Amino acid sequence: MTKVGLDDVAALARGAAVLGTGGGGDPYIGRLLAEQALRAHGPVETVTPDELPDDASVLPVGMMGAPTVMVEKIPSAEQVGTAVTALARYLGRTATHVACIEAGGVNSTIPFVAAAQLGLPLVDGDGMGRAFPELQMVLPTLSGIAATPMSIVDEKGNRGVLHTVDNHWAERLARTATIEMGCSAIVSLYAMTGAEVRQGFAAGTLGLCIALGRDIDRARREHRDPVTAVVDRLRGQVVHTGKVVDIARRTATGFARGDATIEGVDASAGTRLVLRFQNEHLIAERDGTPIATTPDLIIVLDRETGEPITTESLRYGHRVSVITAPCDERWHSEAGIALVGPRYFGYDLDPVRVPREA
Amino acid sequence: MTKVGLDDVAALARGAAVLGTGGGGDPYIGRLLAEQALRAHGPVETVTPDELPDDASVLPVGMMGAPTVMVEKIPSAEQVGTAVTALARYLGRTATHVACIEAGGVNSTIPFVAAAQLGLPLVDGDGMGRAFPELQMVLPTLSGIAATPMSIVDEKGNRGVLHTVDNHWAERLARTATIEMGCSAIVSLYAMTGAEVRQGFAAGTLGLCIALGRDIDRARREHRDPVTAVVDRLRGQVVHTGKVVDIARRTATGFARGDATIEGVDASAGTRLVLRFQNEHLIAERDGTPIATTPDLIIVLDRETGEPITTESLRYGHRVSVITAPCDERWHSEAGIALVGPRYFGYDLDPVRVPREA
Repeated sequence: MTKVGLDDVAALARGAAVLGTGGGGDPYIGRLLAEQALRAHGPVETVTPDELPDDASVLPVGMMGAPTVMVEKIPSAEQVGTAVTALARYLGRTATHVACIEAGGVNSTIPFVAAAQLGLPLVDGDGMGRAFPELQMVLPTLSGIAATPMSIVDEKGNRGVLHTVDNHWAERLARTATIEMGCSAIVSLYAMTGAEVRQGFAAGTLGLCIALGRDIDRARREHRDPVTAVVDRLRGQVVHTGKVVDIARRTATGFARGDATIEGVDASAGTRLVLRFQNEHLIAERDGTPIATTPDLIIVLDRETGEPITTESLRYGHRVSVITAPCDERWHSEAGIALVGPRYFGYDLDPVRVPREA
Repeated sequence: MTKVGLDDVAALARGAAVLGTGGGGDPYIGRLLAEQALRAHGPVETVTPDELPDDASVLPVGMMGAPTVMVEKIPSAEQVGTAVTALARYLGRTATHVACIEAGGVNSTIPFVAAAQLGLPLVDGDGMGRAFPELQMVLPTLSGIAATPMSIVDEKGNRGVLHTVDNHWAERLARTATIEMGCSAIVSLYAMTGAEVRQGFAAGTLGLCIALGRDIDRARREHRDPVTAVVDRLRGQVVHTGKVVDIARRTATGFARGDATIEGVDASAGTRLVLRFQNEHLIAERDGTPIATTPDLIIVLDRETGEPITTESLRYGHRVSVITAPCDERWHSEAGIALVGPRYFGYDLDPVRVPREA
């Protein structure tokens, strides 16, 4: 058991945005949300999946919708707490722990709001080991865990519980509700026992996020390259350094979709990298050839500061480094690729695995 | 207390389609659904609102969506029963009675399916005294009763419970869910006590539907005009007799919308009536002048047989009589007109009240 307090939140939000691979929402908003909750209620206890009792009642919670919208419509602590209690009430049991659905600037910190408000410990782990745009895209789906019953709550006080025949239907019905609610909502779903969390979750994500955030901070203070610090922590590699010369984005069907073109400099001079995203970066193409694809991690950092850049804050002229890193190995199973591989997102590509560097 | 059995269902479905004013679904489908349920479970007891205990737990149930779709996607008895039990479970109480939300070919018979399957009595009344296309458009809304918590269930097994800040939000969120579920779903909503039913409901609708259906049948057998029989029962009037010469329809935002033009014959010769509908007939214009509008009843009957014609079955060449009849007087209150008057539906018209004939 560890305590996460106010001093940890900035690093946590920054590291979560790294794993968020462009999605998961603005880490600054995520930081403010968690800081407000920890200031009101004190530090949150985190427990590793191994520490969970087999019969723990774990309710993951997060934001669903377009991060482009959520930055203007910040959820309240009450809204976040209601998502968890509405699901618990429907299930007819009390939550013993809350958890993160994904790693991302907002979805790694919103569960702190729930944990602080409800006085519950938080699981150090998440359902993806990264961020993905649709709610069936979690490791628990691969181990047969149902997304529903799930709750969905908006900022006006509307709420609902969905109980669907499979996790794709949960995504469909929750997505249309989210859009009608104004393109962002808080959801609690994938209710799990402790035993199921051990089987289905990526462990240690919160600790990794805090470590990543601190790595970036320490490198800056010690005048080392923060991008290298991230690469080292994730055993990834820098695949491109350059300047954003074109960006097209649209908020469609509840997602922030688009493409960014990055003109190479230094070691990347003379090459162009195109990133294709749907909330998260899904495909990186160098001069027309895919060099990394979902489910591996494609991460965009500010070239100088190492600050992670979300897809919605990426702008023309940004000097960036693009990093790739290996995802949780379960995503490379046949079922994993069917769920989150390039073809699911409409790209006629086999997945390109990135190397795992020592 | 009265029993409604197999012998009553044909008259009930036909009479309900008269009050359905073009909406509420195909009476033939409604009849089949109820007959199947009564054959399996025996007659259903109906009780008047006056007979309800004050603390009765009444759960209305019905179909939501486009009748044009529902004729091809018939709900199962299990789906109808699940809507009621899912809401009862969410409310944490047992239903003592079921009820009709509206009068209409399907929505007057689906509650019989629920009543028969669950072994519960059915309230002789409904929430509108006619049919309307949106779920906040019920008399209970006028007496401050909340539509939610409400359940929504599709034929695939997906279900949900919504709990919204007001009845308009219930319509918005349930409508988008209904569309995603394939444009039709079964809903249970406006959970009420017996006292609330007495205050908020239109009483006696089921008895009136059966009487209307029998009137039409008897007039045919006795070679009298069935249209006149309906007019007499509803204290209405025939406003037009003619042939459908043009019909435009579209299934948009989950509704069957359109316009029909009826060229006059006999007493109506030389005039044209245009009907504007959204599931139900909302406006009747004679040669460009509105002569009847929502909330009063605009009913289209087959000129020879008196058979009620739903908006989705109205066809070019149909010989029809158009009847108007007064609605429940509460709809003509200021709040009633705000909820279901012409302006709500986008027509820049004051409501035109039809005369009540002796």
